[in-house]
Amino acid sequence: MDAANSTEPPMLPDGFRAHIANAGIKDSTDDFVVIAAERNCTASVMLTQSTFAGPSVTISRQSAANGKLQAIVVVSKNANVATGRRGLDDAMELRNGVALSVGCDPSDVLVASTGVIGVPYPMARLREQFSVIGDGLGEIDAVSVATAMMTTDTHPKVASATMETLSGGTASVVGVAKGVGMIEPDMATMLAFLFTDAEVDPDALDAAFRRAVERSFNSLSVDTDTSTSDTAAVLASGEAGPVDVTELEDVLHAVCLDLTRQLAADGEGAEKLIQVSVSGALDNAQAKRVAKSVINSPLVKTAVHGCDPNWGRIVMAIGKTPEPGIDQDTVMVSFSDMVVYPATDVVPLDRLREYLAGSVVEISIDLNIGEGSWTVYGCDLTDGYIRINADYTT
Amino acid sequence: MDAANSTEPPMLPDGFRAHIANAGIKDSTDDFVVIAAERNCTASVMLTQSTFAGPSVTISRQSAANGKLQAIVVVSKNANVATGRRGLDDAMELRNGVALSVGCDPSDVLVASTGVIGVPYPMARLREQFSVIGDGLGEIDAVSVATAMMTTDTHPKVASATMETLSGGTASVVGVAKGVGMIEPDMATMLAFLFTDAEVDPDALDAAFRRAVERSFNSLSVDTDTSTSDTAAVLASGEAGPVDVTELEDVLHAVCLDLTRQLAADGEGAEKLIQVSVSGALDNAQAKRVAKSVINSPLVKTAVHGCDPNWGRIVMAIGKTPEPGIDQDTVMVSFSDMVVYPATDVVPLDRLREYLAGSVVEISIDLNIGEGSWTVYGCDLTDGYIRINADYTT
Repeated sequence: MDAANSTEPPMLPDGFRAHIANAGIKDSTDDFVVIAAERNCTASVMLTQSTFAGPSVTISRQSAANGKLQAIVVVSKNANVATGRRGLDDAMELRNGVALSVGCDPSDVLVASTGVIGVPYPMARLREQFSVIGDGLGEIDAVSVATAMMTTDTHPKVASATMETLSGGTASVVGVAKGVGMIEPDMATMLAFLFTDAEVDPDALDAAFRRAVERSFNSLSVDTDTSTSDTAAVLASGEAGPVDVTELEDVLHAVCLDLTRQLAADGEGAEKLIQVSVSGALDNAQAKRVAKSVINSPLVKTAVHGCDPNWGRIVMAIGKTPEPGIDQDTVMVSFSDMVVYPATDVVPLDRLREYLAGSVVEISIDLNIGEGSWTVYGCDLTDGYIRINADYTT
Repeated sequence: MDAANSTEPPMLPDGFRAHIANAGIKDSTDDFVVIAAERNCTASVMLTQSTFAGPSVTISRQSAANGKLQAIVVVSKNANVATGRRGLDDAMELRNGVALSVGCDPSDVLVASTGVIGVPYPMARLREQFSVIGDGLGEIDAVSVATAMMTTDTHPKVASATMETLSGGTASVVGVAKGVGMIEPDMATMLAFLFTDAEVDPDALDAAFRRAVERSFNSLSVDTDTSTSDTAAVLASGEAGPVDVTELEDVLHAVCLDLTRQLAADGEGAEKLIQVSVSGALDNAQAKRVAKSVINSPLVKTAVHGCDPNWGRIVMAIGKTPEPGIDQDTVMVSFSDMVVYPATDVVPLDRLREYLAGSVVEISIDLNIGEGSWTVYGCDLTDGYIRINADYTT
């Protein structure tokens, strides 16, 4: 696999076009995106497990059931959640309008929507878009797509990679994502879409994507709050021809992980990306639970924010998980490669503070009781988080 | 039962005396307390479930096993946690030194310690105390005791109530507590001690205290972080004679709940007490899980801080729990008695903002699927929390 390292923003892969517009949801920034494939794509979708999921999620669950999709419509700055019967009717009308404009079956449209909860769509303005989508579809770079999906994101999140096809050609995977708060994805993150021109069997794509999401978006937590709108999807147009499935999974994982790290670093008010790796656990699931306890601890998050190597808070966060087998005499805790617990070789405080002042902080925990391991991604907790969320308008 | 409403701080009940001192743990404020009963007391103790519990907890678990205690020693501003073999030796010496000074068996001493993690006790200074405890013990008011237990608390927490004994006399229950951060008690809160001169059977006291703690301290969350040092204990000297056990449980619960609300309102950086009551759940356990999800949501906590009636975040926090049976069409959410979801009768925004500007905010949720109910206590998330915890010295 090759990560794209050109300074040009990547274009959507062969077979995908997009329409971007301002539909006047909240202000004059772009807030309406349709990405359409020339033909029906192999697809895999993961959606929020929230019991307060909105109609976008309900409809998308139906559309994704057969492993086929042709278009995605994204409305930003309004989640259309907790809007009752009217919200469901609006979402159906949106799906049908987009299907007609794109020229596909309504059941091949994925609907995604994030933003304020409890406010109905301005349907008159959305209807105006239906007549212009068809002419608007063009070859568009991924940064423009990611930008139009943003709510309070400070910058667009895009990642891409290429791989060789079985016939010696090149296939690409391009991903876009958005989301800064209400992020502890349960089955998928806020919104993340991957597009590829690789040709792949539906079941193989689904299995590969689920594993990639589990080790990336599902290992991300900004604030422990799981969104009502989480959606992650991959669409494969097949234009580039067949690829090796194992290599495709590696490429999907690399793109998902790149987006995950971008999402963590741009968490609401975040100034640092925090990565917590747990090894030596009884199994991977235990490693993930312990890692999540540390990445979600407000006391750990504020200590990192204050460049304070307060490892006491890390052992507290390990200790509060009701996990079997953990023995405080075998646990080892490090910042990067500097062991702070057990405190046998004392690392100079200055060196630790200097490390914590960087933009990426890696915390490693070895439980020394088994072979399980997991890494999770998050961010520090800052005054900025409080300001953004105490002032955000309903 | 009668809540004490005198302006005089309550004295410890008959049969209890205390010694308070500055042992120079961190600064010149009081940081060393011994509370001793004249004779062996019936006692019930609940301790943290953390796997990183310190030697104070290990020793206290042994002392409490037989339902008898005579003395409590509290060291504040140093938790003596993650201090290895030396920490255990130090805690044993502290226990033995206090037992000798008070004139009781070492196995009847409860040891409690909170503050910085990973730093050994200054044992030379603690040893100086051993020789003066005996003469220092006197009749002391509960506010002085609670003050000497404080770390970053902004004020001491004391609560008391009286009840009639079976012979027509009066028994009192006096409680002291401390704790502002690292608070989501699993079996007990940071430190809370109740003293009573009521006479009560050990098993009856234990059962009554466990139920009282479950509905009070164990329903409190400041920041989701469970301390390594949580301890709640009740000591009954018996001086006042036998009481009705059911009435005693009510009194214990009232004192625990009063202290719980004081702890929540004084959470680190807190400006408001938040109370979340869930009713209509399948059972009490489900009601508690849903209530905890709401009280712990940083998005709900910041919305309350910003006086923003953003009920969308409340339904998000209900939705993210993987609870069976919850149907968004039957859920009802209110601020005090103002129903905000479903949004049928729209409450004026001004009225909601005015309510949220108060110092106590009550959120009520009716799931309408059963008879279970639970109330939990917490606080808003503010810039003050970030400042306190990003700047707190290791």
